[in-house]
Amino acid sequence: MPRLALVPGEPAGVGPELCVRLAQRTRDYRLTVFGDAGVLHAAAARLGLPLTLVDARGGSATPGELAIVEIPNEADAVPGAPDARNAVAVIGALERAAHGCLAGDYDGLVTGPVHKAVINEGGIAYTGTTELLAAQAGCDVVMMLANDIVRVALATTHLPLREVADAITPAALERTLRILHRALHDDFRLPDPVIAVLGLNPHAGEAGHLGGEEIAVIEPTLAALRHEGLQLQGPLPADTAFLPGKLRGYDAVLAMYHDQGLPVLKYSGFEQAVNITLGLPYPRVAVDHGTALDLAGRGIADPSSLFAAADTCARMAIARKAASATDPHG
Amino acid sequence: MPRLALVPGEPAGVGPELCVRLAQRTRDYRLTVFGDAGVLHAAAARLGLPLTLVDARGGSATPGELAIVEIPNEADAVPGAPDARNAVAVIGALERAAHGCLAGDYDGLVTGPVHKAVINEGGIAYTGTTELLAAQAGCDVVMMLANDIVRVALATTHLPLREVADAITPAALERTLRILHRALHDDFRLPDPVIAVLGLNPHAGEAGHLGGEEIAVIEPTLAALRHEGLQLQGPLPADTAFLPGKLRGYDAVLAMYHDQGLPVLKYSGFEQAVNITLGLPYPRVAVDHGTALDLAGRGIADPSSLFAAADTCARMAIARKAASATDPHG
Repeated sequence: MPRLALVPGEPAGVGPELCVRLAQRTRDYRLTVFGDAGVLHAAAARLGLPLTLVDARGGSATPGELAIVEIPNEADAVPGAPDARNAVAVIGALERAAHGCLAGDYDGLVTGPVHKAVINEGGIAYTGTTELLAAQAGCDVVMMLANDIVRVALATTHLPLREVADAITPAALERTLRILHRALHDDFRLPDPVIAVLGLNPHAGEAGHLGGEEIAVIEPTLAALRHEGLQLQGPLPADTAFLPGKLRGYDAVLAMYHDQGLPVLKYSGFEQAVNITLGLPYPRVAVDHGTALDLAGRGIADPSSLFAAADTCARMAIARKAASATDPHG
Repeated sequence: MPRLALVPGEPAGVGPELCVRLAQRTRDYRLTVFGDAGVLHAAAARLGLPLTLVDARGGSATPGELAIVEIPNEADAVPGAPDARNAVAVIGALERAAHGCLAGDYDGLVTGPVHKAVINEGGIAYTGTTELLAAQAGCDVVMMLANDIVRVALATTHLPLREVADAITPAALERTLRILHRALHDDFRLPDPVIAVLGLNPHAGEAGHLGGEEIAVIEPTLAALRHEGLQLQGPLPADTAFLPGKLRGYDAVLAMYHDQGLPVLKYSGFEQAVNITLGLPYPRVAVDHGTALDLAGRGIADPSSLFAAADTCARMAIARKAASATDPHG
């Protein structure tokens, strides 16, 4: 049974109550939460749900129970009002949990939402959890968002639009496609995954009339990787690549930038969407929503994304174990 | 009853057969088709549908019948095999029909798909029908795509991605918003339309961390127009602006560029989507698909978009007449 490390994220946000709801589930994975016991008990009390926190190596699969690695907050956590003094504990929990994954104590990492501004206000330079985990592990990573309809990976993530075109280099694109292909193969058990690669420009450049990057950068990169056997379609016009009939032919879509790929992903199923980090030595899946400070403490936040994140992470952990057992490169 | 000018577009594509199907409908608008009678009769014969072409000023509303302004092709039209010799007739039909609208002989223009490369091959410099109509009328225009779920207008259209950021100027954005607001008000009878304006950068720039155009360009432009009473929301992050619950609060979304706005539009309802040109002296609505040469002549092309285009154009024509009758600026 996979052992998952669970990090609630910002203690004043919806993360703790979502973790309490996750703890109630009948599950086929073990959970160990990294965080402040008092915050979790308070969230459970507000929800009127049972919560037992235990010291159990490898985690707990018992409904109503979580194993805990305690990382106490500096200040009281008031729902809706983040306190920068807790930034050290929030980031500490992420780092401890990730370290446990790297050490092999856990098979995957599931994370709730973090409040970027509050972490920086607390004196910690933080651009995002994905970046933090990549730096800690010393890896190139790819961000992929997924719901039941589509998986969308991003060739660039949080870049100003005017910097995107120059960031799409042959080397970066090749690296991204290799990570994506490998993850679809190993973590999603797709023996011969088909990746739809979007163009950078409208109409995928329309044979060079609307931009040259498809011809100069994307097409040669795809051609070289196809020679190695990767199943790559494109570069495709972004506006028609997501038509439902076409999506069924792809295992993932690689968008060149954030706003090209994510509006459809979120429109087609926001509640169940998760944010997956590919390329790390362990599977990491996050919720695809923020701290929702306006909902925190009211017991009304929808836990679907955290449930989907844990389920996805558990499936990925099992798949990866099977792949590494059979794959000579594993 | 509105009088609509209808242009089938590329004679070797699906345009003629879609026009024959449109002609069969019981309708509350009159249609006059601008094109080659032989091509239309051939399409009708292949479909096994009746078609009478009549010389009737103002058009025909009789099912199975179209008024025609004959514009003969130079060469035979073979379904699936466009002939550049017909470029003059294709563009001539568009220009004649648009001229009729400008002269007040027709109340709106409905157009089928044109094959851009074949027109250029035929010796006519052509970048798109929208651009042709704007130049002919001497107007600034805005392209808006719409289906039953959402209306998406574009601040820039067919530009290489690396040119987009510089094209979003205060003057251009203001012009676009004024045209969009006016059209929603006059042509769609929305007394106080709400427009959601997307940011240029991911997360709408995240307070300047991911790009400065929201603060330098978009916000001041919106603020100035709000002073005049326009209902403008944003700049909004594109990935969450299209969530179904949010869309219900907007009458239109203004995307900053092509691939930011159109993937969701097409995903959410491609078959019924139409392409509307705002800012012309007459309403113009086009199908939101191409010539579909692979389907042409087989009788299987879906006419939903042309039906929606004609219905939309007729409604817009009626609304505009009502607006110009009551509006002192009309």
